[in-house]
Amino acid sequence: MQDQNQQAYDRGMTIFSPDGRLYQVEYAREAIKRGTASVGVRTTDGVVLAADRQVRSPLVEEQSIEKLHRIDDHIAVASAGHVADARQLIDFAREQAQVNRLRYDEPIGVEALAKEVTDYIQRHTQSGGVRPFGTALAIGGVDPDGTPKLFETDPSGTPYEWQATTIGGNRETLMSFLEDEYRGDVDLDAGITLALETLAQSNEEIDPEAVEVSVVDTEIHRVRSLEAEEIDGHLAEFGGADDE
Amino acid sequence: MQDQNQQAYDRGMTIFSPDGRLYQVEYAREAIKRGTASVGVRTTDGVVLAADRQVRSPLVEEQSIEKLHRIDDHIAVASAGHVADARQLIDFAREQAQVNRLRYDEPIGVEALAKEVTDYIQRHTQSGGVRPFGTALAIGGVDPDGTPKLFETDPSGTPYEWQATTIGGNRETLMSFLEDEYRGDVDLDAGITLALETLAQSNEEIDPEAVEVSVVDTEIHRVRSLEAEEIDGHLAEFGGADDE
Amino acid sequence: MQDQNQQAYDRGMTIFSPDGRLYQVEYAREAIKRGTASVGVRTTDGVVLAADRQVRSPLVEEQSIEKLHRIDDHIAVASAGHVADARQLIDFAREQAQVNRLRYDEPIGVEALAKEVTDYIQRHTQSGGVRPFGTALAIGGVDPDGTPKLFETDPSGTPYEWQATTIGGNRETLMSFLEDEYRGDVDLDAGITLALETLAQSNEEIDPEAVEVSVVDTEIHRVRSLEAEEIDGHLAEFGGADDE
Amino acid sequence: MQDQNQQAYDRGMTIFSPDGRLYQVEYAREAIKRGTASVGVRTTDGVVLAADRQVRSPLVEEQSIEKLHRIDDHIAVASAGHVADARQLIDFAREQAQVNRLRYDEPIGVEALAKEVTDYIQRHTQSGGVRPFGTALAIGGVDPDGTPKLFETDPSGTPYEWQATTIGGNRETLMSFLEDEYRGDVDLDAGITLALETLAQSNEEIDPEAVEVSVVDTEIHRVRSLEAEEIDGHLAEFGGADDE
Amino acid sequence: MQDQNQQAYDRGMTIFSPDGRLYQVEYAREAIKRGTASVGVRTTDGVVLAADRQVRSPLVEEQSIEKLHRIDDHIAVASAGHVADARQLIDFAREQAQVNRLRYDEPIGVEALAKEVTDYIQRHTQSGGVRPFGTALAIGGVDPDGTPKLFETDPSGTPYEWQATTIGGNRETLMSFLEDEYRGDVDLDAGITLALETLAQSNEEIDPEAVEVSVVDTEIHRVRSLEAEEIDGHLAEFGGADDE
Amino acid sequence: MQDQNQQAYDRGMTIFSPDGRLYQVEYAREAIKRGTASVGVRTTDGVVLAADRQVRSPLVEEQSIEKLHRIDDHIAVASAGHVADARQLIDFAREQAQVNRLRYDEPIGVEALAKEVTDYIQRHTQSGGVRPFGTALAIGGVDPDGTPKLFETDPSGTPYEWQATTIGGNRETLMSFLEDEYRGDVDLDAGITLALETLAQSNEEIDPEAVEVSVVDTEIHRVRSLEAEEIDGHLAEFGGADDE
Amino acid sequence: MQDQNQQAYDRGMTIFSPDGRLYQVEYAREAIKRGTASVGVRTTDGVVLAADRQVRSPLVEEQSIEKLHRIDDHIAVASAGHVADARQLIDFAREQAQVNRLRYDEPIGVEALAKEVTDYIQRHTQSGGVRPFGTALAIGGVDPDGTPKLFETDPSGTPYEWQATTIGGNRETLMSFLEDEYRGDVDLDAGITLALETLAQSNEEIDPEAVEVSVVDTEIHRVRSLEAEEIDGHLAEFGGADDE
Repeated sequence: MQDQNQQAYDRGMTIFSPDGRLYQVEYAREAIKRGTASVGVRTTDGVVLAADRQVRSPLVEEQSIEKLHRIDDHIAVASAGHVADARQLIDFAREQAQVNRLRYDEPIGVEALAKEVTDYIQRHTQSGGVRPFGTALAIGGVDPDGTPKLFETDPSGTPYEWQATTIGGNRETLMSFLEDEYRGDVDLDAGITLALETLAQSNEEIDPEAVEVSVVDTEIHRVRSLEAEEIDGHLAEFGGADDE
Repeated sequence: MQDQNQQAYDRGMTIFSPDGRLYQVEYAREAIKRGTASVGVRTTDGVVLAADRQVRSPLVEEQSIEKLHRIDDHIAVASAGHVADARQLIDFAREQAQVNRLRYDEPIGVEALAKEVTDYIQRHTQSGGVRPFGTALAIGGVDPDGTPKLFETDPSGTPYEWQATTIGGNRETLMSFLEDEYRGDVDLDAGITLALETLAQSNEEIDPEAVEVSVVDTEIHRVRSLEAEEIDGHLAEFGGADDE
Repeated sequence: MQDQNQQAYDRGMTIFSPDGRLYQVEYAREAIKRGTASVGVRTTDGVVLAADRQVRSPLVEEQSIEKLHRIDDHIAVASAGHVADARQLIDFAREQAQVNRLRYDEPIGVEALAKEVTDYIQRHTQSGGVRPFGTALAIGGVDPDGTPKLFETDPSGTPYEWQATTIGGNRETLMSFLEDEYRGDVDLDAGITLALETLAQSNEEIDPEAVEVSVVDTEIHRVRSLEAEEIDGHLAEFGGADDE
Repeated sequence: MQDQNQQAYDRGMTIFSPDGRLYQVEYAREAIKRGTASVGVRTTDGVVLAADRQVRSPLVEEQSIEKLHRIDDHIAVASAGHVADARQLIDFAREQAQVNRLRYDEPIGVEALAKEVTDYIQRHTQSGGVRPFGTALAIGGVDPDGTPKLFETDPSGTPYEWQATTIGGNRETLMSFLEDEYRGDVDLDAGITLALETLAQSNEEIDPEAVEVSVVDTEIHRVRSLEAEEIDGHLAEFGGADDE
Repeated sequence: MQDQNQQAYDRGMTIFSPDGRLYQVEYAREAIKRGTASVGVRTTDGVVLAADRQVRSPLVEEQSIEKLHRIDDHIAVASAGHVADARQLIDFAREQAQVNRLRYDEPIGVEALAKEVTDYIQRHTQSGGVRPFGTALAIGGVDPDGTPKLFETDPSGTPYEWQATTIGGNRETLMSFLEDEYRGDVDLDAGITLALETLAQSNEEIDPEAVEVSVVDTEIHRVRSLEAEEIDGHLAEFGGADDE
Repeated sequence: MQDQNQQAYDRGMTIFSPDGRLYQVEYAREAIKRGTASVGVRTTDGVVLAADRQVRSPLVEEQSIEKLHRIDDHIAVASAGHVADARQLIDFAREQAQVNRLRYDEPIGVEALAKEVTDYIQRHTQSGGVRPFGTALAIGGVDPDGTPKLFETDPSGTPYEWQATTIGGNRETLMSFLEDEYRGDVDLDAGITLALETLAQSNEEIDPEAVEVSVVDTEIHRVRSLEAEEIDGHLAEFGGADDE
Repeated sequence: MQDQNQQAYDRGMTIFSPDGRLYQVEYAREAIKRGTASVGVRTTDGVVLAADRQVRSPLVEEQSIEKLHRIDDHIAVASAGHVADARQLIDFAREQAQVNRLRYDEPIGVEALAKEVTDYIQRHTQSGGVRPFGTALAIGGVDPDGTPKLFETDPSGTPYEWQATTIGGNRETLMSFLEDEYRGDVDLDAGITLALETLAQSNEEIDPEAVEVSVVDTEIHRVRSLEAEEIDGHLAEFGGADDE
């Protein structure tokens, strides 16, 4: 899977390989592929984040396998990859959101937050003594002016804005589904269904208990987590519900 | 047991392997498997922690082989793995609990404590110059609002909530037993028996002197260590007592 | 692609090879070649920067793949190579521009800015514990005295002034085209067309939506981004428009 | 004695091996086995520490080969292993005892002291830039409430309480003798004889001049070193005296 | 080109080889040979610095390929080798000249400046965490007392004074020419011609636009850059002009 | 002389080998064996230090090859091994003696000084970034209460008290002679002769000019260096004088 | 020239080899042998330092190849080896001399200066992150009490006093000549001739321009550099002058 040359760039710190790659960053991307998928969909009246909780044991409290995190009233984040790393980024994002409120007395913009987070990630790829974050985030929210926004971060520290995206395992399959199905005029309700249907591409069926969905709509500008019955309703729309 | 590639990721600091793994974290997990088992069970009216003390010599004072530790009035911890590392985490947890009382004048929540501890653990996996902690903790307690809670930490710094769990050696056997036997409506009394019966899966018989059991119930919200005769009584319920 | 000797100079920090080269800097140059191209053209009445956005997915918001960045009223920058690294340099450049305004109460000169940035880049090639920036910048603007200027930075930290230049992938082809076509008396309007025609050397056709063009003219001294229809008009001049 | 894999974990700092071991800590334990033995015995009315001085030359002042050290009025320590490392731990222990008196105006408990020392030892196994201590301590004393206590520390930083223990060379032989002969109701006088008889298991005969014995009794709570004639008397009880 | 032994001294920091050499310093000298040549000539009534600008593309602004730098009113510097490193030394030299004026209210002596710069260079060869400078400087000027002076620095940090010297590529050829042709009684005018003729030894013909010449004369004590027509005149004296 | 395993423990810092040894400390001991011998003898009325000066050339000023050093009025030190390292320890010892006088207004005890020095030595064996001292000291003096004392330090940082000892080259031969000849009731005069006779075991004859002798007697408590004629007289007593 | 074992001790920092040697220090000594020779001679009425300037090119200003340096009114230094390193030690020595005057209002003693310098050198052999100095100094002067003194420093940091010595290339030949020819009652005038005659042992003839001689006499206590004609006169005494 790797040859001798590649080995030479793995030790000690993140440096360039002869073909201009940063292997530690690429390996961190592999850590993301090892996790379960999350999906983000931007709609005309809000943003949807949906995530699949990989339950290792029936004794784990499913809600403790957080994949979706509230950052501020108006911004939520879906994470994929190395869980402990993701928690550090979530904490960093929450601090940035708070700092913005204290300093400017207004909520932080979604893009501004994404850029603070990616700057922080980038510094972990250029200085010695630390390793990159093995985690990707989908950052969704509604800007103070009412515009829904969806950003994604990767281990290199690049922020891109998306109409809809997926992070974590099975990305190729899910992304291809999203690219086929996504329409720019999708509304929040249809967006939830689309997000769940995208997630369903990696599993045969979806247990409503094992799925998390958070939305931020353009009306009340607040993160809201969907109840299991709401999720159930959306699953029914495309026949994706687990008939348990 | 390991090939050449794997060796390359073991030296100096915790970095990603080409397939996105952190070998030092995985090796720290091996340190946990080398220890004896501890069990945590959440019940309707409290949390149970039980641990097996591996006695190296009859001359060791058994109570000095602490596997269960009181963190605050309402939270106890079971540890497994590298004993000296565990003590550092215990001390850190106690400080966090004290800080919370000083700062907010109220006891720390079980989840809040688990997250402080896992943040601390995670930092030992991302910065150079330190190694990960070779220890796992089961953190059990009753929240200020009276809810029993059980969390587990691992060397990556991931906090998960459990209904019942086991850390340390023989995890597969014990976990499988717990998954079969645990019912969500178990009460504290039955929970103690279940915890001991789970521990008994790795030993043929259990010496009540060699077992520690701590409970935090939802009534008085305080950590209480069971006396040997109490333990004996529970062992009798499933015939697990050492007939010495 | 590399022999044993070369490997020896890749680890840990940027040091000289026996033939006096800094391999980490050369590898960072490879990172630049992996990106899409940007073009800068200095004209008699302003500077043009044009960039091709490599769109990985139709779901990415094209405008978030920023290749052109406003540094101050009168200076813009095109970047190529490692995106996250570029963002750090952009932020650094913006700070320098602000500092200049605060300290001297006047806009920073284009050359002064280019030199601040390259000093910062050079320090990342001489001290241990950091790696070079895998990014090149074309810095274009109009000096306070009304002179249009175009500079380029590379991973070694060398600033050169250009009449017209290209950074990123396909440099040889694009540069050769520029060298043939560029005339010193080109005006801003013709300069825009030349920049787009140069970009078109790497693609068969150009989607006006996928191209960014920024200009700073000598009249109003301000960075202005061209609208899609403006770009379209220029593409029509050389038949480079995507007939979609 | 070691294979290739093992070598990989010996360099630079203390990190985990693939099977979860800390080799530098295990090698430090080997340093302890290279020294002479010390014995600690807890009795009903005090604690006994006894040590064998390995005299390299008749010209060495035997009393300068300290194996037993007074930490405070009520606590003494026996050391084994790397002598210079032991001295650092002894100094650290004395400081902790003094600090306790200054801060709380009372003598430090034996267990509290043992835990301060082992925390200090553990930190030398987790951070880079230092090596573990190649030394073990038997810490004996009488608590402020009059209870005799005996603790042992090892290079991992684990504190255990013992009824009786031995550190240093020949541990297996001496420990097995102690386990056979120790009774929980032994009094101080018999404890001294037992400690000396245990030491005698590694030598054929014992030179009373070459043996150190310190006791802390529950009456006066003070460390007292036995005179040679006292030691002689105890040796006579089991025929262990050197008939020189 | 190098054997195994040599490799051992290239990594991490600048240390001695068994035969007492500092390879990183020697490799930095190779970086200098890779650049174009500069020439310095001391004359009876001033100092001449001349440099060849290696133009990579007709689109580069030739004057931005600075090889000659004004340090203070009365001192100029020619650089060769790694361009970005040279810029750091130039900046350092300018600061030293300014500091001297501020502290002593008089211009810095040429030798004093050369020694400040070489001390700075030497520190980059003895401490870890940095690499040597891959650059050589010819420092020419007129001392406050009116004496023309010419110094040269190398990557080891040794300052030597010269009557005439050359740095950069083709040193052997150019130096040998200078040694044959230089006379101590050369005046400034003849010195300019000699400097250009020396440069011409590496190229067949010289493009007056591609050559920089700076002089500091003993009358006005100020750095002056020659215009292209002046250079042309001197080239004509030895038939070195490009007949373009 | 060494196998592969041993090599692994020599690099970077002082760490344990699998058999619990610190090779850097053992190699530092080899540095001591490479030097000339010094002898220390404790007598009933003072301490004697004697040293052999290895003269590399007749042009060296013999007294500059100091082997004996005055630390304070009442304490002298003989050194062996790496000369430059010894000088650092001598300086450290002198500072400690001064500090003691300033702080407590009384001369430092010989044992207290020996322990300050060995603590300092030990720290050089446990922390990274420094190497051990390649030097041994014999510290002789008269305590404030009039007791003569003789201590020895080695590269591990262990302080032992001796009646008589030898450090440096030929230790086995000289020590064996001392063990045979030393009597506890030797007086200062006889002690000087014994020290010189011990030194003579490594050379056939002793040049009184090449030998240094310092004594501290219990009457005046002051370090005194013997004149050549005094030394001559003692040499005559055992026929050890060079008949030059 | 070196075997595998030796290689192991060359990297990163100065540590002991199994036979107790510091290879980096020994390699630094090789750097000294690569330079030209300097000679120091102590006479009844002053000290002589003489040095051979290795002129690389007739265009180098010979006086800039300083081998002799004035440290203070009454002390001069001859250097050999790595020129840039020597300059750092010279600067350090000058600072120490100034500090002494400021602090004690009197000139520094020659021995005191030599020891300050060697302490500084030694620190570069024991701590990581720096390499030893590749330079030797002969420090000559007249003490405040009128005594002429001559010291020598080496890369280990050992100070020895000499009647006459030589540093740099060809040491064996020159030292052997000095040992044969030096007499303790040589006066300053004869000492100059002896120093030059010693230098002449490595060259067939000596160019008075290429030789530097400095003296400090016991009458005026000041460093004086000899003029070329004076040198010529001394060369004539032994027929060593270049008959150019």
